[in-house]
Amino acid sequence: TKMKLPGQEEFDVSSAYENVPTGELDSGPGSGPSPDSSSDTDNRELGLSNDPLLFIQLNELLGWPQALEWRETGRWVLFEEKVEVGAGRWSAPHVPTLALPSLQELRSLLAEGLVLLDCPAQSLLELVEQVTRLASLSPELRGQLQSLLLQRPQHLIQTTSTRPCWRSAHPREAFHDEEAPLKEQRQNPLRQKLPEGAEAGAVLAGELGFLAQPLGAFVRLQDPVVLGPLTEVPLPSRFFCLFLGPSTLGRSYHEMGRAMAILLSDPQFQWSARRASNLQDLLAALDAFLEEVILLPPGRWDPTARMPPPKCRPSQHKRLPSQTREARRGAPAEDRHGHPPHAPSPELQRTGRLFGGLVQDVRRKASWYPSDFLDALHPQCFSAVLYIYLATITNAITFGGLLGEATDGAQGVLESFLGTAVAGTAFCLMAGQPLTILSSTGPVLVFERLLFSFSRDYSLDYLPFRLWVGIWVATFCLALVATEASVLVRYFTHFTEEGFCALISLIFIYDAVSKMLSLTRAYPIQGPGSPAYGCFCQYPDPGGNESQWIRTKPKDRDDIMSTDLGLVNASLLPPPECARRGGHPRGPGCHTAPDIALLSLLLFLTSFLFAMALKHVKTSRFFPSMMRKVLSDFSSVLAILLGCGLDAFLGLATPKLTVPREFKPTLPGRGWLVSPFGTNPWWLSVAAALPALLLSILIFMDQQITAVILNRAEYRLRKGAGFHLDLFCVAMLMLLTSVLGLPWYVSTTVISLAHMDSLRRESRACAPGESPSFLGIREQRLTGLVVFILTGISIFLAPVLKFVPMPVLYGIFLYMGVAAISSIQFMKRVQLLLIPAKHQPDLLLLRHVPLSRVHLFTAIQLACLGLLWIVKSTPAAIIFPIMLLGLVGVRKALEWVFSPQELLWLDEMMPEKETSMHEKGLEPEYSFSGSDSKDLELMYQPKAPEINISVN
Amino acid sequence: TKMKLPGQEEFDVSSAYENVPTGELDSGPGSGPSPDSSSDTDNRELGLSNDPLLFIQLNELLGWPQALEWRETGRWVLFEEKVEVGAGRWSAPHVPTLALPSLQELRSLLAEGLVLLDCPAQSLLELVEQVTRLASLSPELRGQLQSLLLQRPQHLIQTTSTRPCWRSAHPREAFHDEEAPLKEQRQNPLRQKLPEGAEAGAVLAGELGFLAQPLGAFVRLQDPVVLGPLTEVPLPSRFFCLFLGPSTLGRSYHEMGRAMAILLSDPQFQWSARRASNLQDLLAALDAFLEEVILLPPGRWDPTARMPPPKCRPSQHKRLPSQTREARRGAPAEDRHGHPPHAPSPELQRTGRLFGGLVQDVRRKASWYPSDFLDALHPQCFSAVLYIYLATITNAITFGGLLGEATDGAQGVLESFLGTAVAGTAFCLMAGQPLTILSSTGPVLVFERLLFSFSRDYSLDYLPFRLWVGIWVATFCLALVATEASVLVRYFTHFTEEGFCALISLIFIYDAVSKMLSLTRAYPIQGPGSPAYGCFCQYPDPGGNESQWIRTKPKDRDDIMSTDLGLVNASLLPPPECARRGGHPRGPGCHTAPDIALLSLLLFLTSFLFAMALKHVKTSRFFPSMMRKVLSDFSSVLAILLGCGLDAFLGLATPKLTVPREFKPTLPGRGWLVSPFGTNPWWLSVAAALPALLLSILIFMDQQITAVILNRAEYRLRKGAGFHLDLFCVAMLMLLTSVLGLPWYVSTTVISLAHMDSLRRESRACAPGESPSFLGIREQRLTGLVVFILTGISIFLAPVLKFVPMPVLYGIFLYMGVAAISSIQFMKRVQLLLIPAKHQPDLLLLRHVPLSRVHLFTAIQLACLGLLWIVKSTPAAIIFPIMLLGLVGVRKALEWVFSPQELLWLDEMMPEKETSMHEKGLEPEYSFSGSDSKDLELMYQPKAPEINISVN
Repeated sequence: TKMKLPGQEEFDVSSAYENVPTGELDSGPGSGPSPDSSSDTDNRELGLSNDPLLFIQLNELLGWPQALEWRETGRWVLFEEKVEVGAGRWSAPHVPTLALPSLQELRSLLAEGLVLLDCPAQSLLELVEQVTRLASLSPELRGQLQSLLLQRPQHLIQTTSTRPCWRSAHPREAFHDEEAPLKEQRQNPLRQKLPEGAEAGAVLAGELGFLAQPLGAFVRLQDPVVLGPLTEVPLPSRFFCLFLGPSTLGRSYHEMGRAMAILLSDPQFQWSARRASNLQDLLAALDAFLEEVILLPPGRWDPTARMPPPKCRPSQHKRLPSQTREARRGAPAEDRHGHPPHAPSPELQRTGRLFGGLVQDVRRKASWYPSDFLDALHPQCFSAVLYIYLATITNAITFGGLLGEATDGAQGVLESFLGTAVAGTAFCLMAGQPLTILSSTGPVLVFERLLFSFSRDYSLDYLPFRLWVGIWVATFCLALVATEASVLVRYFTHFTEEGFCALISLIFIYDAVSKMLSLTRAYPIQGPGSPAYGCFCQYPDPGGNESQWIRTKPKDRDDIMSTDLGLVNASLLPPPECARRGGHPRGPGCHTAPDIALLSLLLFLTSFLFAMALKHVKTSRFFPSMMRKVLSDFSSVLAILLGCGLDAFLGLATPKLTVPREFKPTLPGRGWLVSPFGTNPWWLSVAAALPALLLSILIFMDQQITAVILNRAEYRLRKGAGFHLDLFCVAMLMLLTSVLGLPWYVSTTVISLAHMDSLRRESRACAPGESPSFLGIREQRLTGLVVFILTGISIFLAPVLKFVPMPVLYGIFLYMGVAAISSIQFMKRVQLLLIPAKHQPDLLLLRHVPLSRVHLFTAIQLACLGLLWIVKSTPAAIIFPIMLLGLVGVRKALEWVFSPQELLWLDEMMPEKETSMHEKGLEPEYSFSGSDSKDLELMYQPKAPEINISVN
Repeated sequence: TKMKLPGQEEFDVSSAYENVPTGELDSGPGSGPSPDSSSDTDNRELGLSNDPLLFIQLNELLGWPQALEWRETGRWVLFEEKVEVGAGRWSAPHVPTLALPSLQELRSLLAEGLVLLDCPAQSLLELVEQVTRLASLSPELRGQLQSLLLQRPQHLIQTTSTRPCWRSAHPREAFHDEEAPLKEQRQNPLRQKLPEGAEAGAVLAGELGFLAQPLGAFVRLQDPVVLGPLTEVPLPSRFFCLFLGPSTLGRSYHEMGRAMAILLSDPQFQWSARRASNLQDLLAALDAFLEEVILLPPGRWDPTARMPPPKCRPSQHKRLPSQTREARRGAPAEDRHGHPPHAPSPELQRTGRLFGGLVQDVRRKASWYPSDFLDALHPQCFSAVLYIYLATITNAITFGGLLGEATDGAQGVLESFLGTAVAGTAFCLMAGQPLTILSSTGPVLVFERLLFSFSRDYSLDYLPFRLWVGIWVATFCLALVATEASVLVRYFTHFTEEGFCALISLIFIYDAVSKMLSLTRAYPIQGPGSPAYGCFCQYPDPGGNESQWIRTKPKDRDDIMSTDLGLVNASLLPPPECARRGGHPRGPGCHTAPDIALLSLLLFLTSFLFAMALKHVKTSRFFPSMMRKVLSDFSSVLAILLGCGLDAFLGLATPKLTVPREFKPTLPGRGWLVSPFGTNPWWLSVAAALPALLLSILIFMDQQITAVILNRAEYRLRKGAGFHLDLFCVAMLMLLTSVLGLPWYVSTTVISLAHMDSLRRESRACAPGESPSFLGIREQRLTGLVVFILTGISIFLAPVLKFVPMPVLYGIFLYMGVAAISSIQFMKRVQLLLIPAKHQPDLLLLRHVPLSRVHLFTAIQLACLGLLWIVKSTPAAIIFPIMLLGLVGVRKALEWVFSPQELLWLDEMMPEKETSMHEKGLEPEYSFSGSDSKDLELMYQPKAPEINISVN
């Protein structure tokens, strides 16, 4: 009783993929994103070919014997939806499950039954006649069957109103006189979710007592036609299946119908069914399906527990025959130019000519320049502008405040706004990667603080000194551009990126907390014995302008009381009031401000926690998804507003943001142009080269690490990077901002990623339960440009900004730091240190690298981070940029500690090492256990963006 | 090419269940919980019979042709664990998936191969000889094969140390000279997880080039014997399977081996394999397995994504043949006495005699009395005592504080402690349901507050008046006991319980927030213009004891400054210091205490959020599970400690808990016995009957709703309830506490449920991935008794308790309220109002009741709650108990609005209605769609405890 193994020779699958469009991978600059490219992709996802999408509906015959009626009980596109009878609604889409016997029964019924391929019927009536004509039925039975099949089925059409309704206007009435779809069917909101050209498949199943033996029919229509009210959505039907029979088999017709519907919803089977020329082809397709089904043993999974659609469906490419699969395997991991994942992309290939990279960058980007503006014509760009604008000014405000403190006002909020606007606008117009957002960054701030304290210690004129540093940095960077040094970014692995990102985030967190704590020192809490009460208001001598005092305040309650109390020439007015009236506040308690410290702490925590909570709203179930997205995208803005509101409500004199009231430099007495020497000796302009060298390294690292992260293959950028051009722009802007005495700017990872995230193109989720797939980023220059122009205009926002309390901004800073650090993979590994092995998540990494090796790698990263932090905090901080560069060296040294496989999983390959590995024919995973080979493909699948925080 | 449908006639499954023990369902009082009952249940869960547990291991032959070795690559008990080759560790347990072809290949190999049932081999050597003797092999091949089979396999033994190791001391060495298990095998920690008597099954599979054709063998050993180092754990092996063959079939031997292991891990197949008498039986069992497998269509589920073990596995009873299933279906829903789920239990059947119910209760409980102490001898009870003790004193402190305020000190913290101890101890000794914890409750507090303000308004002597109310309540309750009124609790459906629970929780939340806000009024925040500064210290007249002033403080800094400032006879000393030195603080600002309000708010929020966060630690991945459980169980204690620590660190004069310093009534001048009349007129003792009537209703509702919740079938209590006896005890304690002037006590839901939760008996999770199943509660009197005795001793804790700030207690109160309200199903339905239909969780309720009806039910409940709240807050609050009773009436009226099915899903049946339903033959779910019948069983499965909060 050996079961037949369905032979593969009967059915050649490979031709199923001949129609896959490959245009997207090598679309040239001229083509641009076509508006229908997304639906193309959807179709390919669903059907593996250009076949139209198939909507399948199961109508069941119920009520035997008294009140026969057809009722829709399930529908399928990719996943199964089932009618919840009691609740009168559709279930959530779920992965369908089947029992083997029903598939086997279906197979035998198909084999014995009627198979009509390319049936020329033009209407339901014709179809029904054809189906019943061929079946071996008595004329009487045939008539009964025909009228039954023409009976209008009841659909559950879920309209947008609260209560869905069963639509069947005239039950039991044959509808061949009224074969047009009903109004409800045409207005079915499901229709909008299905792409143009979608076809329907109807499966009719049920128990019919008057039949002597089971009746099975599989019909493929030659030309799809709308079969009246047969399907819930009036789509042209391509397939029509019928399974009726006596009640001996019990419930099995329902399950057989489901099995047929699930079969039809399988892209592979669908492809074959569309092309089958006889019954054998159809059965072979069913056998091929059977061979690939996944079996769960009974009793290990509750079949009533519905399996939610998986987040990541297996690629249909896996179902290709092996040679085809081999050929295609590299595809998903290939970057936009079709290169294998680890080979350097052409942007990073050395030309060997001076400024060769820059020239190439300019050439490459020039061809895209017009499309950089045309591609922005999409409503999504509008919301991106609003979001990134708010993020940018928040950043400008906070960094402005920090810079103002760090440089004693040499730069302030006004300079921060102005510089951001000028530098950002220029960068967006000229840069190679216009999705990048320029900003002040933590490391540059640290460096500037060092530079300022150095020049203060040696009584140097800061801005002229800084000008020379800027000139030198620009020169060095120009030299780096000329020598195409940017190709070295190939050595920036995840290890380097993560170390850098973690450091930046920690600086954010540390600064926020230490600023907050310094507030509690500035406004001490009034503990027992604190001089809260020791303050009174002393008037001028009686001989002075006492008459004026007496004249102005005869009704003053406080003064009257003071007199009662026996105070002479003094009252208990609060200090500001006292000063306003010409008195002098006297006493140790006059300068204390109670409640400010705790209120600041409260505002700090509130804005931090509120922003964190709002960010998580996106993944909650509550509220419509649109509203959740807005709440989470604007989390930091809303948190700032809440903080300001709370502060205004209590009305305490918390420290507020200092903003200039007029458009002039924050430092009194300086102009917009920095004089080249000031009071500094002339040789300082030469000596500035030394700090400039360090700063150049820092700028290079900071700029290029961000650029590497932004240009990762998983973001599927099509217009290419511009590492050389970007560095060139940064160098020129460095010069400009130094001359104007504005802050220095480089690319900022966090906001740039948020920018890209807000410009994601995703496929419209067609099938219920299907999650939208990522198609790419709307690459253009306009959003950034508008953001920075708006930032420039915001300089005149001063009257509003002065109401923002500083603790709220510190809270947002903390939020940004925490959000950034928790999104890097390094932190996931740090968390692993705390999770017992038993409860660790099933990461692919942990399947392939021993836990102790993972922990060792994490520990080394932690040690590097600790060392960087210590260097940053000591007087040796000036060598900090060199230490950053040292990260690359440490990573290189790790190759002595970890095996190439381990590094491949923990980090990524360094360029040369890898070629040697390929030469050696070393497979990334040396697996001996059969099913491990599956993981191989997973590893090469594009990873989800690693840092995908939506943070302002 | 029709596939064979495996015939059921060849294999009678029903006999598989003949050994299922049914003893537990009707265990009498004498039997008690036997120590091994849990392992019995485990076995039954796993094997459906008393067959021993089977541990299955797959050893694969790797390294062909150069370096052949056996290596363990997978193991199974219930779920699959797989060796992560790269990481050198075991994967997490997951639901195994199979491909149909490998099962079919296995079937054909079995059919052609060697099947040895009841093989008498006593050692691996003998076994190997038997297996190879029967195969048609040349002598040379046989020798090669024998030595290969005797080669020591490599096991991955994961010891508790960090790095697991491959254990194979002497690779390639035949071990028939050393067949004893290795030390590592004996120390394998997995062994402790497997129950006594477990057996092993070894599956050996792999590619062996020198074989001409595939070799399959299935051996069942007559007497299980430890086959040396064959399996990772040295268990006696029952099964031995071998699948070897030439490499033409590629990877399939691995998959065939997996298929065999998965088959063996299926309880149904295992049962058959143990009893099969020939090959046909074995193949029939395989076909029966195939018939029940669950099929997932390819491409809808990624087979490399491992499916975690489901929380709730389907009952194996479902796989019984239909008649047997029908007979057993009721079982899970039956309560402890084998009655159908909705029929009243005997405790709630009216005897018709005066005190008949009470007598029955006493009789029933008396037989359990000795076991009520003996059953407590388990270490779990110790931690339960600690947990519930802390919860009880927290509650006593908070309610004591609230009662003290509500009654102007007539009751206070000391009375609260004393009363809790006395009443609790007495109740635990006498009550029918000793798991109940007595406490002051919200509704009684509300009533007491009303009573106090009434007697204050009419200048009554409160305690004597209260004594008479207590006497009357006791009388009424006694009458209720006599008339067996407790049988009416059958009408308390979820609707009533939820309304009541929600109200209690809201009272908690409201009280906490309003107390906190009243603190900010008592200690106003110092806004601009607030009189923070208006205070100075005035000395007595110069003519008075000025000399004393000057003499005592020549070095006083403040005074010197005052003189400098020109103040005469005044200084700026803080008020307490000023008063201490004989001066008078003067001015409007002397009585303000800055920073207190905000610090209180901070403490309030901190303790609330910290307790909430700690509660959720239980479900996090971090830390070992033991530590998480401790952190979450003691969340409120830890939050209180944190709050106290924070407060002590800042050292501000926040309001602290007022505790008596000596053992005497809080109210000065009252004794421990309340005089029966005091200054009240004599007729007041009669008039007290009116409020007593209302209070009696309240007590009855409060007590019995808690009792109903505690006695729900899902908790599987075995010793029965004691509704009448409990009410009798409460009445007697009412009398006692009234006489002593102590607070009134009834059962409190939240702590009682926490008590039960801490006494859960769960099966030890034997198989990896299996979650422990709930077996029942350790029903005894000792834990409660010890808790209340400890509470009594805690009266002397006063020196410690006076450091607890009030805002921290308010925060814990808020936490208790929020935790309680968020755990009731009603709140889940309220949340549904905010969730768009698309994102709603897949609740069974929503599968069967239209959403609009669910929302209507929720809205009615919300309206009732709103009405109750309004009544509680208005002067009409005195009729509040009647309103509570009205909830039952509203529920009754709902039967006019909702259909019986809807009410069955939304609430539960009222007793009479239900019998009529059964008479009418109305099925709870009138389903016409086939697969809906599955839900039916789900509905009757015991629900998870609805309120299972672990809150203090």
